[in-house]
Parts: sequence; structure tokens; C-alpha cells
Amino acid sequence: MEEIVIRYIGKKPILKEPILIEGLPGIGNVGKLAIEHLIESIGAKKFIEIYSKDFPPQVFINQNGTIKLVNNELYFWKAKKKNQKDLILLTGDYQGLSSSGQYELADSILRIAKSYNVKQIFTLGGYGLGREVKEPNVLGAATSRRLVNKMKKYGVIFRENEPGGGIIGASGLLLGLGRLYGMEGVCLMGETPGYLVDPKSAKAVLTILSKVLNIEVDLTELERKAREIELIAQQLRSLEEGIRKGKEDLSYIG
Amino acid sequence: MEEIVIRYIGKKPILKEPILIEGLPGIGNVGKLAIEHLIESIGAKKFIEIYSKDFPPQVFINQNGTIKLVNNELYFWKAKKKNQKDLILLTGDYQGLSSSGQYELADSILRIAKSYNVKQIFTLGGYGLGREVKEPNVLGAATSRRLVNKMKKYGVIFRENEPGGGIIGASGLLLGLGRLYGMEGVCLMGETPGYLVDPKSAKAVLTILSKVLNIEVDLTELERKAREIELIAQQLRSLEEGIRKGKEDLSYIG
Amino acid sequence: MEEIVIRYIGKKPILKEPILIEGLPGIGNVGKLAIEHLIESIGAKKFIEIYSKDFPPQVFINQNGTIKLVNNELYFWKAKKKNQKDLILLTGDYQGLSSSGQYELADSILRIAKSYNVKQIFTLGGYGLGREVKEPNVLGAATSRRLVNKMKKYGVIFRENEPGGGIIGASGLLLGLGRLYGMEGVCLMGETPGYLVDPKSAKAVLTILSKVLNIEVDLTELERKAREIELIAQQLRSLEEGIRKGKEDLSYIG
Amino acid sequence: MEEIVIRYIGKKPILKEPILIEGLPGIGNVGKLAIEHLIESIGAKKFIEIYSKDFPPQVFINQNGTIKLVNNELYFWKAKKKNQKDLILLTGDYQGLSSSGQYELADSILRIAKSYNVKQIFTLGGYGLGREVKEPNVLGAATSRRLVNKMKKYGVIFRENEPGGGIIGASGLLLGLGRLYGMEGVCLMGETPGYLVDPKSAKAVLTILSKVLNIEVDLTELERKAREIELIAQQLRSLEEGIRKGKEDLSYIG
Repeated sequence: MEEIVIRYIGKKPILKEPILIEGLPGIGNVGKLAIEHLIESIGAKKFIEIYSKDFPPQVFINQNGTIKLVNNELYFWKAKKKNQKDLILLTGDYQGLSSSGQYELADSILRIAKSYNVKQIFTLGGYGLGREVKEPNVLGAATSRRLVNKMKKYGVIFRENEPGGGIIGASGLLLGLGRLYGMEGVCLMGETPGYLVDPKSAKAVLTILSKVLNIEVDLTELERKAREIELIAQQLRSLEEGIRKGKEDLSYIG
Repeated sequence: MEEIVIRYIGKKPILKEPILIEGLPGIGNVGKLAIEHLIESIGAKKFIEIYSKDFPPQVFINQNGTIKLVNNELYFWKAKKKNQKDLILLTGDYQGLSSSGQYELADSILRIAKSYNVKQIFTLGGYGLGREVKEPNVLGAATSRRLVNKMKKYGVIFRENEPGGGIIGASGLLLGLGRLYGMEGVCLMGETPGYLVDPKSAKAVLTILSKVLNIEVDLTELERKAREIELIAQQLRSLEEGIRKGKEDLSYIG
Repeated sequence: MEEIVIRYIGKKPILKEPILIEGLPGIGNVGKLAIEHLIESIGAKKFIEIYSKDFPPQVFINQNGTIKLVNNELYFWKAKKKNQKDLILLTGDYQGLSSSGQYELADSILRIAKSYNVKQIFTLGGYGLGREVKEPNVLGAATSRRLVNKMKKYGVIFRENEPGGGIIGASGLLLGLGRLYGMEGVCLMGETPGYLVDPKSAKAVLTILSKVLNIEVDLTELERKAREIELIAQQLRSLEEGIRKGKEDLSYIG
Repeated sequence: MEEIVIRYIGKKPILKEPILIEGLPGIGNVGKLAIEHLIESIGAKKFIEIYSKDFPPQVFINQNGTIKLVNNELYFWKAKKKNQKDLILLTGDYQGLSSSGQYELADSILRIAKSYNVKQIFTLGGYGLGREVKEPNVLGAATSRRLVNKMKKYGVIFRENEPGGGIIGASGLLLGLGRLYGMEGVCLMGETPGYLVDPKSAKAVLTILSKVLNIEVDLTELERKAREIELIAQQLRSLEEGIRKGKEDLSYIG
């Protein structure tokens, strides 16, 4: 079996210098939430399924009892207006389990991207702060100074030496390896506590991305999910507080 | 050395659209118990041994002092009646140690299955509940809605989003990768506490499978084993209870 | 770089159906001690060095400050008498780190063995008991009943289902994979506490092996080492006892 | 994707039997500090970037917001005087993550070295003592007695069986595998506590290396860094002492 199995769904689309956008599982699931919302919102179509020996040996079970082998998927979308570009959108169930598998997957995706003449990549992710975030900023990193400067105009924040440990996983690799393929790119990272899935951070990322892409995206669904998560977070906080107070009371009694 | 070594025992059998049935080690060893009982009961013949670099580097020692390199094995059985189908049965000592090895093994087996024109797969396993099970249900997952509906008629239970984590290992992979080979399939999972080997759960799985396959299987041996395990389980429970009571007594004294 | 690098030292020897004997590091280092003593005692000559990406990335430093990349080595010895056979002897610094690497190494060695027309293999190892051993027995496992019976005559003990976990590592793999190459073989396991290197157990193994091979081996050096280790073991035991008594005294005081 | 990606920067330099010098991350980062100082001091030019699937899937973020995929790099320097030799200098962000990857990387670098007709290798590293070091010695290991004797004259210390565990990683592998390529080499290890990066130890290594290479290296920058680290170490020590004293006081009170 090949390390990576690329499976086309239907016939290959014809795209004009599409932009590749990645959103795979990660901190706060920010990237995946953002891209799944984008895919649904613009009605992008799946055209490639990617299977890999470096994903877990696992099938998911759909609500109707049927199974789905874990994978990554590529969707495409054709520009509707003059100031828009065609898109290829990457999402999936997992990133590669091993370092080697992550490189292999990123490289496979870049080879597909190359075959479609991709010149620019956006990778989406979360930037875990480990504390509550009122209004999440979107941090950036890019393959060139020109892009850094361009992104600053859209409100992306570039902080010296942040993230300190660099970017780990597909969001970094696609940019790093992409350069070897002559592609330029930007990583957009939404600030997030990182404890729960974070639609608020995904919304912040998507707000900027939609401006860059000149695509209008209805964000009400993400806002609804964000309120849901906010409720869960509040419940967890009051539970914690309850436990803490309980302890204090006990220590008073004891 | 090849990743996987396929070794034919004797001459290749001629089979007519056989059904592939898998039962490898797993939770409660349900799948392996079920298929080994089936193999013995119908007198299936071994025709392939599969060795892999992803199995442990280990030989077992037989009672007579001879050795056996750990492997997976394929058996075949030719239909005796008109409403039966030829079978290929897969069992073995281990599943692959790594994710990559599991994919490689499943793929190798599917390539063999393809060469025999297999169209349908049944994978057998346990569904660990972590608690005592009076009468184990058999849960299912399948590659199509048609099969889900068909299996419901045999008493297989399909619960929404259960198992929540999907199916991990050969039982899931053979179905998931099998679809890429154009095969359809069903996973039958017997409920089991998951602490000990569970012949009762294996019997529940085999009862349904034998109906689906129109094969009569004498289950008395599995029932005998189930009673043995039940005795051991009772002894463990009374032992535990003894320890708990002992503790209570002590805490009373102290 | 190849997975395995085979490097001939000097010109290839011409050997007549040699017997392959393995003694790699393992429990009590019994196999390695035995074969190194045998190599020195009969004056076998190194003719192959085996390097592998699955050994640790490590060089050892010799007493004179020069380095040695960790490896496995093959020695040969040509029969001196009519009732003797030519020998290929395998020893080394490490076994493969991963399961896959162990298979690869065993297979490489068997391919070399095949090229020399090896028909029979002896693998040497320890059988860890986790307790003191007065007179170590030598346990066996073999590829055929005929060999089991033959070895019993030399005093090798075959106990039903022992070792329970089978044989793990090169000593098992060379026999298990060797069968696929049409070679027969025997594993000789000297009983050992398994805590320290165990020349006494190595001597027990070598005593039997030398009879099987009709080769006289001077074992005085192994006996001397065994006495040294016995002294160290005694010191450790009295140290332990001292600590235990010390604790008892303290608990008396406290 | 290839296991290793070799990427030339600019046109290939023409070098005359260059000496390969390695300084990758390791204990006290001694080797990397030494070689980076050397590269800067002599103005060596980068000519090769090495990417590997066995490095972490990670990009670093530069101060200006641009990214850099983790890699190893080769620099070259052409001799200025008659008693000097051309140099190839190896440094990088990481060593390979796995044993197999380390072998693969060392082998790739040696193949490049071979193509430039490298005959001699120096590998630089630290020798962790786990205690404070007033004046770090430089320990050595070499591929031949001749080189051991030569290095002794430069003040390199060769202690019997030290380091006891040999040399692990690129510094050992390049010498060990280099021998198979017909290259000779020396490993220079600066003594270091091993807790913090250690410019003092790097200076000791570089002092000897510069004599061997007949290259004058201004070490004031390393000395400045060494004083900085010395300050940090002192602060850590007084902090520790404070904690210890604090504990003593408390135990007095309690």
C-alpha cells in the first residue's frame, strides 16, 4: 500500500491559479472550525479524499450506522466575482501521527496544489494562550516580508518571536515545504484559551480571511456556536468555583 | 525483507465469490474466539500464512517443544448448500503493532481477497462496556444503508454514534479500506465487560453470523467456555468483595 | 542508505554446509557470553560486519581512544575433524531497536546464511527466572519434533509451554524466519536469575553445545568469570540484607 | 517525498579536499555554539540546506514575521593561507528524531562530503559531567591511533573508556559511518555541566580546533557569552541556596 492514497471524487475540476487554504484539527480546533464553516458557507465541493498509513487505523460511525475511514479532504470553489480567486480547501479528521507522516502528507498535498498551479497558501490555526481571551487577536507568520506587511493592513498581528516555539504541524509545514515548491503563504492563528473548541477564535480568523479573499461569509452560525461554548465554559467555571469553595468550607470545618 | 510475507500452504483453492470474515485479537478476544470456533466447527482449511515485520519479533512454543513464528492465517471453506457462500476466514496471533503496519496488513489481506473476487466482508469484535453484561447485544456498523437495514432484521443493533470513538484496528480498517476496493461489509461487535476473554459475547456474535451465513454452528463448546469464565469472574468478584469488607472491618477497628 | 549494510572483511571464506550459531545481547547476556567464549576458544575469524539504521546511532570508544560503530559481526570456523561441521558465528553489540528492524536484521543474516548453504541454526540465550539458580538447566525449543528428541539426549530440557511468552528477539526470529528459508534449528536457553551477566549459565549452554558440535571448549575462563560474578552477587545480597536489618532496627527504635 | 531533501543555495563551490566540521545541537549545545562562532568568525558561506522527514514538522518564526522550516545547513570556506585547508561546516536546528533518521542524515552528509573529496572530519560536542566545571578539558576520540597521538599534542585528552557510553548522535555517527567511506576523523568533546548552554566549553573546543586548522579565531564574543551564562548560573545557585536555607529555617521553626 502506498504511504498516501489520493482518491478523486468525480471528474477533476479546472481551476485558475487557485489559493490553497488549510484548516486541520489543532489547538481549539480553530483552523478546522474556520474552514468547515467556510466550505459550507460558500458551497465548496469535495473532489479529493486522502488516506494515509500515518492516520490512526480507525473508522468513524455515521449517525445512520455507516462507516467512514478517517481521512483528509480537498474541496474546490470557483470564483464568482472578478476580485476573487478560485480556492482549494483542505480539512480532515486528523493530522499525521508521526513526524515523517506529517511531512509526507504536506508534500502530497503540495504536489496536488502544484498540479493546479497554486501560488499562494493560507493555513489556519489556533494560538493557545492557556487563559481566557475576551477578543481574540489573529497572529500571523508568512513566507516573505511583503506578505507580512500586506497582512498587517488586514489587522493581522506579527509579534516578535511569537509563537516562541514556531508553528508545529500542517499549518507550518505547508508554508515551509511550500517555499521549496515556489509557493508563498501566510499562517493565520486565532488566539484561544485552547481548552475547548473555540468558534469565537475561528470567527476572528475567518473575518480576516474573508476580507483578504473578497468573499462574504455569513458568520452567524459561528457566533451561535461561540455562545454555546461560552455557556459551557461558564458552567465549567462555576463548577470549579463550587469545588474550590467547597474545599474552603471543608478546610474551615476541619 | 518485504513488509508482509504471504505464504501459501498447499495449492490455491478455487472459490466462488467468497465472503471474507475477520476475527483477530481485540477487546474480550470476542472476534478471535468467534472465528476460531467457526473455523473448527465447519472444518475450514488453512491455505495462507501471513508474516509481517510489524508483528512482534516473537515465536511461540508449542506443547511438543516446537516453535511457531507469530502470524495471521487465512482459512477457506466451500459452501455445502445452495443458500450458502464460500468463505475465507482470517484469524491470527496479533494485529499490527503500528498504525502503518495495520494499514499495510489490512491492505495485503484485501488484495488477496480481491484476487478471490471477494465482494462482502464481515469483521467480528467486542464492544467494551467496562461493566457486567447479562445478555450481550450485538452492535453493528456497515458500509451502506442497505446493509444496515438488512442487519437490523437479524437482530443487530445500530445505536446512533456508537461506538463513539468509531472502530479501531483491523475490524474497522478492513471495512474502510475495503470500500476503496469496491467491497461492502459489516462489523459485528458483541457487548462485553472487556476484562476477561468473553466466550458469551463471542457466542452472541456467532449466533447472528451463522444465521446470516445460513450455516449451522454447534455453540455448546462456547457455552461451556462461557460457564468456565463465569466461574472465574465470580471468584474474582467474591475476592474483591472480601477485600472490600476486610477494609471496612479494619476501618471499624481502627 | 540501505536499511542494512553488509561489509565483508577480507575475502569470502569457502564453507561446507556450515551451522549458524547466534549469541546476541539478551537476558543475563547468556548468549553473547557463550558465543564470544566459543569464538575465542576455537579461534574463529571475523568475515562480515553488519551495520543497521535500526541500531542506536552510537560509537563505542576503545581503550586506545579509537572508535567503533555499533554493529553485528559474523565469524567463521572451518571443521578440523571428520565429525565436526564448519561454523558461522553471529554476535554483536545490539539487537535491532524496533520490531521491524529485528525482522530485517534476522532476514539479512538468513540470506547470508542461505548463500553459504546453511541448513541448521543454533540460537543461544538466557531464560530469566527472577531468582537464584544453583545449577542452571538448559531449556530448548526447536523447529521439528525430530530435533526436540535429538536435543533431549544431550540433556536439553523441554517443558510444556515454557517459556510461556515464547522467545522474543533474534533467538526466536532466526528460527521462525529460518523455517521459511528451509532451515531447521534449535534455541538453547540457559536458566539465569537475569539480574547480572551470567557466565555460569553461559557455561551450561556451551557445555551442551560443544557436545552437539563435537568441539572441545576450554571452559575455565567462563568458570573464573562465574566466580567473580558470584562474589559480586554475594556482596549485593549482604548489602541488601544490611539495609533490611537497618530498617528493622530503626523500626524497633521508632 | 524523499527521506532527505538536499537543496543547493547558489552555485556549487569548488573545494580542494575540504575538511568536514560538524556542530549540531547536543549537551550544553557546545558543538553548535562552537561551529556557529567559527562560521561567523571566518565568514563561511551557506551552500546547502538539508530538510528531512525525520526533523520535527515545525517552522521557526524569524523576528520579522517570516518563517523558516527547520533544517541542517552546510557552509563552505576556502583556505586563505598555505597551511590551511578548505572547510565544509555543518550545523542545524535539530538532529534526526529517530535512530534510523540519524543514520540517514549522517549518510546523506557523508555522500555530499565524498562528492567534495572530504578525507577528514572533525565533530564537535559536549561531554556532560553533571557538575560545575572550572576549566573545561577537551576530550577526544578518533578513527585511528595515528590521529589519537596527533590530537594529544594539541592538548586533547584521551581517557580510557571515556565517555563510557560512547558517543551518541551525529558526532559519533559521522566518524563511524565516515570510516566506511574511507574518511578519518576526530571527535572533540568539551567538558560541560550540561545544564545550560555552555559557551565556555565551546571556547575550549574552538581553541584547540583553531590550532589544528591553523585558523585564527577571535573568541571574545564567546567569552562575553560565557560571562553572561556564568551570571545566570550564579543567580540560579543563590536562588537554590535561598530555597534550601528557607527550608532549613522552616524545619527549625516547625
